[in-house]
Amino acid sequence: MASFSSYIFLIILFIISVGASEIKSIYLPGTYQSSLLVKKHDEKTKIPFKTHYFPQILDHFTFLPRSSKVFYQKYLINDQYWHKEGGGPIFVYTGNEGNIDWFAVNTGFMIDIAPKFNALLVFIEHRFYGDSMPFGNNSYKSAKTLGYLNSQQALADYAVLIRSLKQNLSSDSSPVVVFGGSYGGMLAAWFRLKYPHIAIGAVASSAPILQFDKITPWSSFYDAVSQDFKDASLNCYKVIKGSWAELDALSTHDDGLIEVSKLFRTCKALHSVYSARDWLWEAFVYTAMVNYPTEANFMMPLPAFPVEEMCKIIDGLPKGASKLSKAFAAASLYYNYTQTEKCFNLEGGTDSHGLHGWDWQACTEMVMPMTCSNESMFPPSSFSYKEFSQDCKKQYGVKPRPHWITTEFGGYRIEQVLKRFGSNMIFSNGMQDPWSRGGVLKNISSSIVALVTQKGAHHVDFRSETKNDPDWLIMQRKQEVAIIEKWLEEYYKDLKQN
Amino acid sequence: MASFSSYIFLIILFIISVGASEIKSIYLPGTYQSSLLVKKHDEKTKIPFKTHYFPQILDHFTFLPRSSKVFYQKYLINDQYWHKEGGGPIFVYTGNEGNIDWFAVNTGFMIDIAPKFNALLVFIEHRFYGDSMPFGNNSYKSAKTLGYLNSQQALADYAVLIRSLKQNLSSDSSPVVVFGGSYGGMLAAWFRLKYPHIAIGAVASSAPILQFDKITPWSSFYDAVSQDFKDASLNCYKVIKGSWAELDALSTHDDGLIEVSKLFRTCKALHSVYSARDWLWEAFVYTAMVNYPTEANFMMPLPAFPVEEMCKIIDGLPKGASKLSKAFAAASLYYNYTQTEKCFNLEGGTDSHGLHGWDWQACTEMVMPMTCSNESMFPPSSFSYKEFSQDCKKQYGVKPRPHWITTEFGGYRIEQVLKRFGSNMIFSNGMQDPWSRGGVLKNISSSIVALVTQKGAHHVDFRSETKNDPDWLIMQRKQEVAIIEKWLEEYYKDLKQN
Repeated sequence: MASFSSYIFLIILFIISVGASEIKSIYLPGTYQSSLLVKKHDEKTKIPFKTHYFPQILDHFTFLPRSSKVFYQKYLINDQYWHKEGGGPIFVYTGNEGNIDWFAVNTGFMIDIAPKFNALLVFIEHRFYGDSMPFGNNSYKSAKTLGYLNSQQALADYAVLIRSLKQNLSSDSSPVVVFGGSYGGMLAAWFRLKYPHIAIGAVASSAPILQFDKITPWSSFYDAVSQDFKDASLNCYKVIKGSWAELDALSTHDDGLIEVSKLFRTCKALHSVYSARDWLWEAFVYTAMVNYPTEANFMMPLPAFPVEEMCKIIDGLPKGASKLSKAFAAASLYYNYTQTEKCFNLEGGTDSHGLHGWDWQACTEMVMPMTCSNESMFPPSSFSYKEFSQDCKKQYGVKPRPHWITTEFGGYRIEQVLKRFGSNMIFSNGMQDPWSRGGVLKNISSSIVALVTQKGAHHVDFRSETKNDPDWLIMQRKQEVAIIEKWLEEYYKDLKQN
Repeated sequence: MASFSSYIFLIILFIISVGASEIKSIYLPGTYQSSLLVKKHDEKTKIPFKTHYFPQILDHFTFLPRSSKVFYQKYLINDQYWHKEGGGPIFVYTGNEGNIDWFAVNTGFMIDIAPKFNALLVFIEHRFYGDSMPFGNNSYKSAKTLGYLNSQQALADYAVLIRSLKQNLSSDSSPVVVFGGSYGGMLAAWFRLKYPHIAIGAVASSAPILQFDKITPWSSFYDAVSQDFKDASLNCYKVIKGSWAELDALSTHDDGLIEVSKLFRTCKALHSVYSARDWLWEAFVYTAMVNYPTEANFMMPLPAFPVEEMCKIIDGLPKGASKLSKAFAAASLYYNYTQTEKCFNLEGGTDSHGLHGWDWQACTEMVMPMTCSNESMFPPSSFSYKEFSQDCKKQYGVKPRPHWITTEFGGYRIEQVLKRFGSNMIFSNGMQDPWSRGGVLKNISSSIVALVTQKGAHHVDFRSETKNDPDWLIMQRKQEVAIIEKWLEEYYKDLKQN
């Protein structure tokens, strides 16, 4: 069996509640990629949204006979707070890689602030996700259909839809502000840059727009995960760092699979030790991402500051216990905080929601190279464009265009470029979130600002406010509201003058 | 025979020297469209350019199996003035609808200023024009090939090529400034807006980026042509305005075609009276566009202020002469200033340079509705999206997307949008040029400026300087140079700080 240590990287963007049995991952040889987006069934929409479908054009950027084919793009509307007559603003969530209902429910911030702004809320689903399938059940069939799935087409969808919507609502003068988290935040930021005539501002939360090419060090993501654990407890970090070798060693045993299955309390005997590795890996990465300051139920039900809780588990176990068993115990917090699971399904996750579009995106334009440095708590690994390209070719029949995103959207010397160009953007990040390393962490100009919190995690600012929110989070949201207010004031003032 | 007065409009963007026998036009029922771009054979490149071919990707915005097909895009380079080591700038001409050699020769301004700036000169050919044919001789075959011809793909071509070129030249820190005239000016302006990370500024000469949708009144173009003639002589304007009815009347005669052929001194008997109308029409429109203050040989050899010269011809003819014969005499100045033509070929122009791509672009995204008002000197005409769409469907099998350009690039309320977004753009226009009416004619911000001259014509500022240039033209070019200098200073200063 191969060592764990070669070419391992995770691409996990927007991570949500997954039942242990629902984990989906595609293992490309030498490359582990995963986008875990599963609609949480037990979470109900808290405010009413009306569902609509917009006849969207398949290909905005060619005029081939097939380009004008229409598909139905889902979007949600809430107009209960909107003061349309007064030109109240339109807050648009630029949907990312999943069912839009889920984003609507989990972006409580927009709902919380809508009354204050008298805003219309619109959540637009990203093409090839949720119900917005250009070719119905055949949408994911091959490169001939998936070829239309990419960020530029998605941005153009949003532009066309918003323009049409404003026309239909006779609300031409209502300013649009776009919001997005994670990949949706990248889309919101890029939308403001590419369509400033449609959106007057963008709030991009945890948007790693600099995670491409060589802008951000490739090891930064896993170094950041490791840092979270190290900050919680040096011992904890060391235990996890040492656990992989133990798993590796087990994999060479004749009875290794049986032993690992037993140790990991799997419901069924494992087919591959890799599954155990991935299971641990995901738990640590996702827990770092959602290392929220309050109890939350975003990915999984978890206590406040779950990284610290994991480390408490590890540090509390007897010295004699194996590192692997400690790592398992810590990971169990992630998968079983509610203590309802009797056993774990580490394999055979189904993609019941048809959400594996991210894997395609990662194999075409969303190429974010990641490595594990010797200092990280993960097994060291490198990244090769060549091997990655070969894997994608094998998997999808396409070759990635790894430098396309930075050609199309920029990223290098972003301070210098946007200092002299653009305005009205908020990049919010929490340093607990490993994706923050690929985000914009410094103010660029007076109106392109970075709101960074040391204790924040993956777009925590976009979550509904709770009674237990710490001051820094309350403050961050207040700053966002104040900045949006300024954009709107300026807009209405300009409107009056013209 | 149908009246001339229904749905007549011209789409003529970048107009160049055409021999009388080389005129090419496509007559769509109810719609007259023409882009006359013919390489002038007797004009030689004045400075050496090296010709290169770049392996360009067919479709930047999808990942279909066919998208990654490579074609060879032509570009020209002159490095004789470039101070590469000092990070000298790169001046890129964003090619428009024609052979790039022709633009290189006819954009003397860039060559004139290159030594002062120690600049590298690059002229990139637009896909589907000149030698840059993605499917060789089959490129214009049908919508299946032409479908890849549009402005967004062209802009992405420029982005990819420039990035690659800078990498190959190891000149990462050299700032890029884009230049373009007419449609090329639209591309330069849009390039700065969409790719600010690649170009630090744009000089857009005579770029009618507001000639779309309902931003600019549809009758403005022909009203402006008419104004040029009215300003030269009210009688001249009245004669031309009255000539169409005389031609119309002749068309109902049994011997009308013979009479018109005789009057217009055609080399061969005409097949349609429409040809005479188009011939006159083109002469008046193009002469208005190139109503330059000096003798020039841009479209055709013409004297300084050729509109005035035309009107002198009309005003100098005996009162008893027919309006049509006067109009013919005036138009002859355009086609035969050198007095070398014994007869005129009004029909059967060949498209020897394969340049009719503009007709396709006009039928897809470049929809610029135009009408002739009752006040214009042309027969009144209206415009119908429905009929236009039907005509395009018949001609190419595609339906136009008439609102796409303003969705993708904006245009409505441009002052309000760009006042708060963007920087480093020059929009230069001369009010003699009818395209100026669709241009940006007012300063938008301190760094998005309009340089407007009352006596200037179609991108006259981009022509080589001559001894006879009037002060206002010398001043306009000086302003452009000073502004570009400021952009570069700022860029180098920022670069040092980072």
